[in-house]
Amino acid sequence: MVSRRVERLTSSLIRDVLAAAQRPGMISFAGGLPASETLQLPDFAGVPASVLQYGPSEGEPALRDAVAEQARQMGLRCDASQVLILTGSQQGIDLVAKLMIDPGTPVLLEAPTYLAALQSFHFFGADCLATPLEVNGPDLVQFRAQLARRPAFSYLIPTFQNPSGRCYDRAHRDAVAAELDAAQVMLVEDDPYRELVYDPSCDRTPICARLERAPWVYLGTFSKTLAPGLRVGYLIASPELFPLLLRLKQASDLHSNRLGQWLVLRQLEQGDYPGHLARLRALYRDRRDQMHAALSAELGGLAHWQCPPGGLFFWLQLNHEGVDTRTLLPKALERGLAFMPGEPFFPAAPAAASAMRLNFSHSDPASLQRGMALLGQLLRESPAG
Amino acid sequence: MVSRRVERLTSSLIRDVLAAAQRPGMISFAGGLPASETLQLPDFAGVPASVLQYGPSEGEPALRDAVAEQARQMGLRCDASQVLILTGSQQGIDLVAKLMIDPGTPVLLEAPTYLAALQSFHFFGADCLATPLEVNGPDLVQFRAQLARRPAFSYLIPTFQNPSGRCYDRAHRDAVAAELDAAQVMLVEDDPYRELVYDPSCDRTPICARLERAPWVYLGTFSKTLAPGLRVGYLIASPELFPLLLRLKQASDLHSNRLGQWLVLRQLEQGDYPGHLARLRALYRDRRDQMHAALSAELGGLAHWQCPPGGLFFWLQLNHEGVDTRTLLPKALERGLAFMPGEPFFPAAPAAASAMRLNFSHSDPASLQRGMALLGQLLRESPAG
Repeated sequence: MVSRRVERLTSSLIRDVLAAAQRPGMISFAGGLPASETLQLPDFAGVPASVLQYGPSEGEPALRDAVAEQARQMGLRCDASQVLILTGSQQGIDLVAKLMIDPGTPVLLEAPTYLAALQSFHFFGADCLATPLEVNGPDLVQFRAQLARRPAFSYLIPTFQNPSGRCYDRAHRDAVAAELDAAQVMLVEDDPYRELVYDPSCDRTPICARLERAPWVYLGTFSKTLAPGLRVGYLIASPELFPLLLRLKQASDLHSNRLGQWLVLRQLEQGDYPGHLARLRALYRDRRDQMHAALSAELGGLAHWQCPPGGLFFWLQLNHEGVDTRTLLPKALERGLAFMPGEPFFPAAPAAASAMRLNFSHSDPASLQRGMALLGQLLRESPAG
Repeated sequence: MVSRRVERLTSSLIRDVLAAAQRPGMISFAGGLPASETLQLPDFAGVPASVLQYGPSEGEPALRDAVAEQARQMGLRCDASQVLILTGSQQGIDLVAKLMIDPGTPVLLEAPTYLAALQSFHFFGADCLATPLEVNGPDLVQFRAQLARRPAFSYLIPTFQNPSGRCYDRAHRDAVAAELDAAQVMLVEDDPYRELVYDPSCDRTPICARLERAPWVYLGTFSKTLAPGLRVGYLIASPELFPLLLRLKQASDLHSNRLGQWLVLRQLEQGDYPGHLARLRALYRDRRDQMHAALSAELGGLAHWQCPPGGLFFWLQLNHEGVDTRTLLPKALERGLAFMPGEPFFPAAPAAASAMRLNFSHSDPASLQRGMALLGQLLRESPAG
């Protein structure tokens, strides 16, 4: 009865984990939530009644201007006419999938990658090609080999990647841009974490800014820096793609909520946005350091990881590769601990099923310590301990 | 390069009309906008900081409860677990299309029908079947004949339909429900206008409430009664459809903005919502009557129409059926008048190209009079005048 697409709606493991993570008393390293204490109510004085009326599908003109200006400062050559305000950058993934994917369309991804993008592409019938993501960027030999299979686009998260926390270095950014230009394959660059930088030496210039010939879509959001609950994100697209994405946006929800757009714009213009970002970075850097220390203390001989230079996640690989972290999860939930197993983040086999993703932004220091101790205990008890 | 779906993105006539309608000094009968003076800023005192955090894809629990309670009062047997909060009810159309439509999937619609639904279904590749909409509901012989072609669902707007303004009578509601049950064809009932009732004798009980066997999705919104700019709508689905629609919602934008949800809920709970609706109805009834009078005075011998018992639109049919209102439009725009030509509202040939849709909610009385005079002048000057 339902469409063939729906048969590709993948398992509800993630929904189940996130639902369990909401249970009272649960220590959750599963989601990617901002620390609630960083979410401050805006000043509502001066909100104009016009935000209550229907608005343009493109988004509020002044917000589009501000986003374009920010993007130019990060090196992207663009103007406001290329900016489309979205209902969170998740919507950009949906629009790109609608625009580009027919059943069987090849799409090139990092392995591992953001699982909700993966699910969306899979839902539209994509044939997901994978390039292993190494410490400084994708394996370039494999990236080139996969480009030869003519993917419709490549979806990459070069900066503080979800789930790995990795950041492409300058050489990899240059090389990836050159390969995409040579193959003229479209880039979808997802960049939600760029402002959450703890190691300022990282090159964060978007790969889209380096492209000369390939079409591109850059996805950004205010969810990680201001307030996810407002659902305000954006895309910036090369000019030939913009009109199509705009029409798809209009068909999806007419336009994004105007009150949220107005509040974000005011925060950018009148709030102390740079100061807010600095405080956010300091808080999250502390929590990252604390998780790194707790991991070292509790999981020393059991797992290995990189300390992420930005973003929200540790990507933990168990030393015993025979353990599938999905099988650990029910026991962890029983004890009041949630994490995200590694397997669903992989577009294709082989998946590192012995990996897990741990979020460090949302838990307070005491919960973080207790959660790490629980995790160490669990791993030591498991057959693979 | 792009997906085959994108080749089906239809003409931008509507976007062009609506863009032109925004020009300063333009009198617009084109859109379906609430009167701006009815949009009042809510009281922001007491907004909790929790609305800034990520929220559930289903929507805020208290709002789902309130929507379910409203729905039960209108006769729908449902509970809150069947309610999914949407980013405007337009999103419900997108989710249903994703859920149900593969290329070639037959879908049964009224002719004429809501053009953005039509575009969305067409985009996903639907084969759009049409039933002529008569004064009291669809032509039942044709409706039954089209059901025999096994559409995946029937999309209907039984109450104060867009664009026709018509309202199914009780006999047609019963008959349509019986036919859908007998054929076990899913109903998607779009009901944005139900509260904008000017003739209280209309039967407005949803057809979904009459179904015994067929699956159903009911679409509702607060855009026509509270504030479209907040983008808060909802769907209520029969239990077997809900989990699939929820997962599609999550993939589309994670969840709808929580501030808008909170403000809508407060208005329902603490604002004088029944009083607000009564004032809205009185205002729009006046405007409807005024447009009816102006049409009679200015277009007497040139067109015919029904005075709509609710909703936002007059559906005007020119007496001279040889005139295509699309060709009148550029001249109208030149003179500062916008309307919506009839042809794009038709799922299939034959289309009443000599029809047009006129909105009466958004224009103030003086503009309404002037616009009607302009329209009369234009029609008298046209070759078909």
